[in-house]
Amino acid sequence: MADVYRLGGSLGVPRGELHHDIRTRFLHRFRQLSGLPLEDMGVVVLQGGSGFPLYNSDNEMLFRQEAYFQYLFGVNDLEGWYGAFDIRTGRAFLFMPRLPASYAVWMGHILRLEEAKAKYGVDEVRYVDELSAVLAELAPPCLHTLDGGINSDSGLPMPAVSFDGIEQFTVEAQSLHPALTECRVFKTPGELAVMQYACSVASAAHVAVMQGVKPGMFEFQAESLYLHNMYSQGCRGSHYTPIFASGSNAAILHYGHAGAPNGRQMQAGELLLVDAGAEYYRYAADITTTFPVGGTFTPDQALIYKAVLAASRAVIAAMKPGVRWPDMHLLAERTILAALQAAGLLAGDLEAMLEARLGAVFMPHGLGHFLGLDTHDVGGYQPGGPERPQGAGISRLRTARVLEAGMVITVEPGCYFTRVLLEPAFVDPLLGRFLVEERLRQFLDFGGVRIEDDVLVTADGAQTMCDVPRTVEDLEAVMGGAPWPPPKGVPI
Amino acid sequence: MADVYRLGGSLGVPRGELHHDIRTRFLHRFRQLSGLPLEDMGVVVLQGGSGFPLYNSDNEMLFRQEAYFQYLFGVNDLEGWYGAFDIRTGRAFLFMPRLPASYAVWMGHILRLEEAKAKYGVDEVRYVDELSAVLAELAPPCLHTLDGGINSDSGLPMPAVSFDGIEQFTVEAQSLHPALTECRVFKTPGELAVMQYACSVASAAHVAVMQGVKPGMFEFQAESLYLHNMYSQGCRGSHYTPIFASGSNAAILHYGHAGAPNGRQMQAGELLLVDAGAEYYRYAADITTTFPVGGTFTPDQALIYKAVLAASRAVIAAMKPGVRWPDMHLLAERTILAALQAAGLLAGDLEAMLEARLGAVFMPHGLGHFLGLDTHDVGGYQPGGPERPQGAGISRLRTARVLEAGMVITVEPGCYFTRVLLEPAFVDPLLGRFLVEERLRQFLDFGGVRIEDDVLVTADGAQTMCDVPRTVEDLEAVMGGAPWPPPKGVPI
Ligand SMILES: [Mn+2]
Ligand SMILES: [Mn+2]
Repeated sequence: MADVYRLGGSLGVPRGELHHDIRTRFLHRFRQLSGLPLEDMGVVVLQGGSGFPLYNSDNEMLFRQEAYFQYLFGVNDLEGWYGAFDIRTGRAFLFMPRLPASYAVWMGHILRLEEAKAKYGVDEVRYVDELSAVLAELAPPCLHTLDGGINSDSGLPMPAVSFDGIEQFTVEAQSLHPALTECRVFKTPGELAVMQYACSVASAAHVAVMQGVKPGMFEFQAESLYLHNMYSQGCRGSHYTPIFASGSNAAILHYGHAGAPNGRQMQAGELLLVDAGAEYYRYAADITTTFPVGGTFTPDQALIYKAVLAASRAVIAAMKPGVRWPDMHLLAERTILAALQAAGLLAGDLEAMLEARLGAVFMPHGLGHFLGLDTHDVGGYQPGGPERPQGAGISRLRTARVLEAGMVITVEPGCYFTRVLLEPAFVDPLLGRFLVEERLRQFLDFGGVRIEDDVLVTADGAQTMCDVPRTVEDLEAVMGGAPWPPPKGVPI
Repeated sequence: MADVYRLGGSLGVPRGELHHDIRTRFLHRFRQLSGLPLEDMGVVVLQGGSGFPLYNSDNEMLFRQEAYFQYLFGVNDLEGWYGAFDIRTGRAFLFMPRLPASYAVWMGHILRLEEAKAKYGVDEVRYVDELSAVLAELAPPCLHTLDGGINSDSGLPMPAVSFDGIEQFTVEAQSLHPALTECRVFKTPGELAVMQYACSVASAAHVAVMQGVKPGMFEFQAESLYLHNMYSQGCRGSHYTPIFASGSNAAILHYGHAGAPNGRQMQAGELLLVDAGAEYYRYAADITTTFPVGGTFTPDQALIYKAVLAASRAVIAAMKPGVRWPDMHLLAERTILAALQAAGLLAGDLEAMLEARLGAVFMPHGLGHFLGLDTHDVGGYQPGGPERPQGAGISRLRTARVLEAGMVITVEPGCYFTRVLLEPAFVDPLLGRFLVEERLRQFLDFGGVRIEDDVLVTADGAQTMCDVPRTVEDLEAVMGGAPWPPPKGVPI
């Protein structure tokens, strides 16, 4: 009976089924992982998000739901809600704010309880001011909350749940965060359909930029074209500020922020690195393409591009359940270093380069990260799981886990030429011996290449969810006006 | 020596001059308004903004500077800064975070102190970790801060300034907030140039939507077209979520939020209300246009549109220094009610309607608000200034001040048909006697019309900063493909 979320002609998301499926999985996982005896299991209570005022003004940025809350309850659109899930019975409750009649004048229709129940497909909907009374009726031994659970990317804790009357309950905040986080690592079929839609929209928008970019345009104008293509397909935002980095800017990993706002005028002969995602129903895509502003790769550009593409394809081919993610990072490094060596930019023994962590001079970031409701999705470092690897570059990995089916992870090898890293390396006795300085100095303004796919680990391998031209030949053809995807059976 | 801010081919903002001018005005205003004896005047200390993480994840939304900080110091782009301004000498100091070398790899070039000084045109730049030592050298009797100053739109206080060593200073938080807020009400020529640019970009984007909208499009697709036009001209964002409200949605004043996300498919025969601004160098435009999706007004639509336009033009014609803003609100109400009366939707005595606050049934919001670094800009209710008026609708006014030259305020009369307000009014003995119920019931799905200009109060009048077609004739011509602005000397 729950409704279907969509924006315009975009993918319909059967909200009730999607989150019922998630809650069912969570129930099993929690009972399995929490280590709690049955009589100590109670009711999960989550607090939804409440808006983002711009400092102390009354201007609010577009609301996005808190991720764990949306995950369990499917409320992606409204502020100030609470949710409860009874571990003993599997019953899901939502609690909505009691709004004044004037709300309708400013914000639109006020949901009735029955409408909200039908919309989100939970077992019962009540008002927030009834939360403690409803919980008291359930008489749980404790409330399970996310209080203080640490996000392993940001280091920030989850805030404590707060509501009138909470003091009459025992709050247990140890078991929920690891269990719910672990659930989020493995996507359900319903989640994968949403993520595939976001990836498809983002892919098409990347192609639109390839076909629309021209020398003389400013980076932000290409970004604007991207966003227009993305939003026209129902993806209202992106979790992160798009990176449109031309020329040497491509070596700035998080270019595009307010202090470096995609403001450069692009020139023929340069590469443009586009790291831009899409958000649909709060789920993220995160795709990077790199291509020549003028439509044709120079030999040096093709060299570096092919090195990174080889790394990307090698990793995706090697990924399958049982594979350690740090090994994939090292495989990417090895592939890129070997290509630089073959091209005469590096000299010496490949194993010794890897040992010296030379890879981090050219790829100072981790190979990839989990993807889901957040761009850098949760679950990378879990209690009892593999710890963060040591060593330059690889220590940046946002997870060190062994791959399992159902994980979605980005594969984003890159090769950059950064003065900040190369100049010290030239004079470093450990690293400098591998560097063909004269040749590398010709690349100091090159910028860099990154190729990023969103990859699903399957039962016996892995598959990208992105559909963008990747080879030098395909990129040049598409930039020259060839359609993408290519007509079936007709190689371009 | 300070740099010029611009994005692409957009307006160059001479940052150093702009904020030097502001600080000079502030100095006079503070000395005049604070009521402090000279020997009690010290150093203003402001804390810049620090990013907006999406909950506890490491995804950050695009940074916007805290408005008071940008106002005084011109740092619109970088996080974690402090500023100090010595009231006794007029010397301005900036304090920037000391960043690790790895920052350059992720975020780009790290400013040196001298570069930052040249960029922002202040007297001295130091590191944040030197802030308390530099302040101690200045030996001020106190630090003037904004701590706890209340935003009169949101009711939210300014957070307290915090830095290592603050405890060694006397903090005085009474005089700065009213004085700096009062300064922000009156725009400098430099600020007006920036605001005019934002208004011009927003105006052109409104025109692009008029020419691009078609029956069958979804509201958000028109929004996407708007944003693309806006951003292509260097306005990266808007302070508020655009409202693209077709049909009856136009009566929902803050439509477009996450819970009502511009998701409706527009039909021929309906009006589309577009309330969409633009942000440039943190300054806001805020424009509303209303026009028929199919390009032609029906007689009923033209009737309501002309009523609102008459109110808009009457107000702008009447505005000048010395005029009370609540009187302009009443003038708008009177104009609209008179038009509804003339059309047979209302019956009875106009003065009695005004007395009964009937205007608020059709225009439940205030006539307009100050505009500047915030969309609902500060200074509407100052200590000792006019208090909030009583009465339905008019109590929503975000200021009740007397107009003065240099103020920028929106003029946004509207006329809406809202079941939530009309149904109770039909049965209200005070209001119902004026309502021609049979006729008004034909308008229950009409939606509404709003016309919003950004208006500068001049020495002897007022002028709009917007340039969009406003008459029924001009709108129909532009939607039919006529150019805007019309070629000079050739009436369309
Ligand atoms: Mn990524
Ligand atoms: Mn407004």
